[in-house]
Amino acid sequence: MTLPANWNSALPQPDTHFAERARRRQGLLTKPPGSLGRLEDIAITLSAQQKTDTPAVDRVHISVFAGDHGVCIEGVSAFPQEVTAQMVANFANGGAAISVLARQLGASLEVVNLGTVGEVASGLSGVVDEHIAPVTGNLARESAMSEAQATRALAAGDRAAERAAKSRAQLFIGGEMGIGNTTSAAALACALLNKRPEQLAGPGTGLDKDGVSHKAKVIEMALSRHGSEQDPLSLLASLGGYEIAALTGAILGAAARGIPVLVDGYIVSVAALIGLRQQPSLRDWLHFSHRSAEPGHRLILDALQADPLLDLEMRLGEGSGAAVAVPLLRSACCLHNGMASFADAGVSEKSEE
Amino acid sequence: MTLPANWNSALPQPDTHFAERARRRQGLLTKPPGSLGRLEDIAITLSAQQKTDTPAVDRVHISVFAGDHGVCIEGVSAFPQEVTAQMVANFANGGAAISVLARQLGASLEVVNLGTVGEVASGLSGVVDEHIAPVTGNLARESAMSEAQATRALAAGDRAAERAAKSRAQLFIGGEMGIGNTTSAAALACALLNKRPEQLAGPGTGLDKDGVSHKAKVIEMALSRHGSEQDPLSLLASLGGYEIAALTGAILGAAARGIPVLVDGYIVSVAALIGLRQQPSLRDWLHFSHRSAEPGHRLILDALQADPLLDLEMRLGEGSGAAVAVPLLRSACCLHNGMASFADAGVSEKSEE
Repeated sequence: MTLPANWNSALPQPDTHFAERARRRQGLLTKPPGSLGRLEDIAITLSAQQKTDTPAVDRVHISVFAGDHGVCIEGVSAFPQEVTAQMVANFANGGAAISVLARQLGASLEVVNLGTVGEVASGLSGVVDEHIAPVTGNLARESAMSEAQATRALAAGDRAAERAAKSRAQLFIGGEMGIGNTTSAAALACALLNKRPEQLAGPGTGLDKDGVSHKAKVIEMALSRHGSEQDPLSLLASLGGYEIAALTGAILGAAARGIPVLVDGYIVSVAALIGLRQQPSLRDWLHFSHRSAEPGHRLILDALQADPLLDLEMRLGEGSGAAVAVPLLRSACCLHNGMASFADAGVSEKSEE
Repeated sequence: MTLPANWNSALPQPDTHFAERARRRQGLLTKPPGSLGRLEDIAITLSAQQKTDTPAVDRVHISVFAGDHGVCIEGVSAFPQEVTAQMVANFANGGAAISVLARQLGASLEVVNLGTVGEVASGLSGVVDEHIAPVTGNLARESAMSEAQATRALAAGDRAAERAAKSRAQLFIGGEMGIGNTTSAAALACALLNKRPEQLAGPGTGLDKDGVSHKAKVIEMALSRHGSEQDPLSLLASLGGYEIAALTGAILGAAARGIPVLVDGYIVSVAALIGLRQQPSLRDWLHFSHRSAEPGHRLILDALQADPLLDLEMRLGEGSGAAVAVPLLRSACCLHNGMASFADAGVSEKSEE
């Protein structure tokens, strides 16, 4: 089993020449300098990432990665495990939140099934079968994955990025579905950031206070078993999930192919953080969409030096927060490409002081 | 001169029956309850405002109100006064930020010219001529408007709302253009909220620290002359601008016709606050799009009990912040109308605890 090339080889760099040209153009447009705020920064960053004077995010590729978690047996989720497979069908049939948002955006949506306990009908349109096993090991009592399984999941993510590149996507969004996966993500974040479980464990899909406290205890068990590991791949194998590893592979894979990534919420941020630990220059390819209502997201975002665009108290996953933020990136591009300059419009500039 | 009817007569109420139905539907959709956060609230509120089970903001009417300010003679703006008229032409010719955003949204955009010092070419497409005078009085030394002029501006705004209703708009956005109008809006906010000029005066289109300090002194002069007035119409006349009065008329007029309003930034928030002082039930019709980078906006939003959707450090005006937020409302509607229910999708619900 070989690691995907982008796990170890250097990522490309955004082109600062185009950033400089974009910054100059922003100063010529008919508005007070800086008055479009963060929309100006988005246009400048996308120009450098896409190596163009006319950045665009018309073609958006969304991959939702699904996988089940052995740790569910510890009672860490408000929803039954069968929901993971049921939601794969719901994604494919167009009824899930991300399905609706992908239609709104005209984005291409695929679901990558890495292994679910419930059966997923074969031949569902838009579902990519990357089955590794029905469920991970229970991270509280054993390794969630072997390193070979984690590597397979990383490679499955990389293939999703390859499909995005083939369809000439201008933006990559990874989403996830996996009952129990906030437990896995919280455990990973604790190990990566050297935090206590109570700082990262949250209600997930809807645990009450006792449920959150129990979840923190389960994470504590996992950390006392695996928390001293330092290597990102070992941590991912011990504490991760198939879909989290695939997300890490997809995010690294998108960056390796020069495709900017719009990071969703809690789970995807942890996957990005693992990628960043392996390849610090990954940060140059990441945009951050939203701050999740899951309380621990704040700590993860701080570690990523990320200030997301939205804070709408969303906590659904599936890539939904990122999808909701796409029109902001589109507005930034439309304004950058479509506004008149002071000279073109015959508008007087700011007075000399 | 008669005031527009909606200045004094009661506004319609959103239909709580539809809010209740929408809230129930949100609980049936395939997602953890509450996990779409504020997008759920938006869908519920729009359902009640639009009296429908399928809220939508496909048809958006944007009116940008333009007017010049006598107070510019005091040196309160970083841009020369001729820019107001030049920007009217830029709106009409499609080169301004709001023009670009209106195209992105497929929204109808009109510019209502209430009076500019510079000449606006006649016959520009999409410009509505509601000329009152070339410029207001200098609010630091006299009344900005007579009550008759303020009433004319209110009525011009009401006519914009009437056009929105005729085109069956599902959402109304008011924007503004007027060099010097943050000085007028800050003076109004000080008088309405009993605050000091230093709390509300900000850089506007780009004043430096000394410029902001001078602006606060000019506002202080205006307040010592007019600040003791209590009646919203008198305040509007003394301290307002044609475009600010028109915005107030348009916002009240939209609410009177049952059209929800998406409030833009600093200036429009002040116009909404005046409307609210005259008609407290106006609040039921307002959505808030963004927090402006203009520091005093925070105090105005607090008074409106508003928590805007976006905080992107924008400070352009024109209705641009509201336009950028429209896709969030559209996402909320698409999700509400388009997601499958647990029953339809065969997805298991949350476990009983």
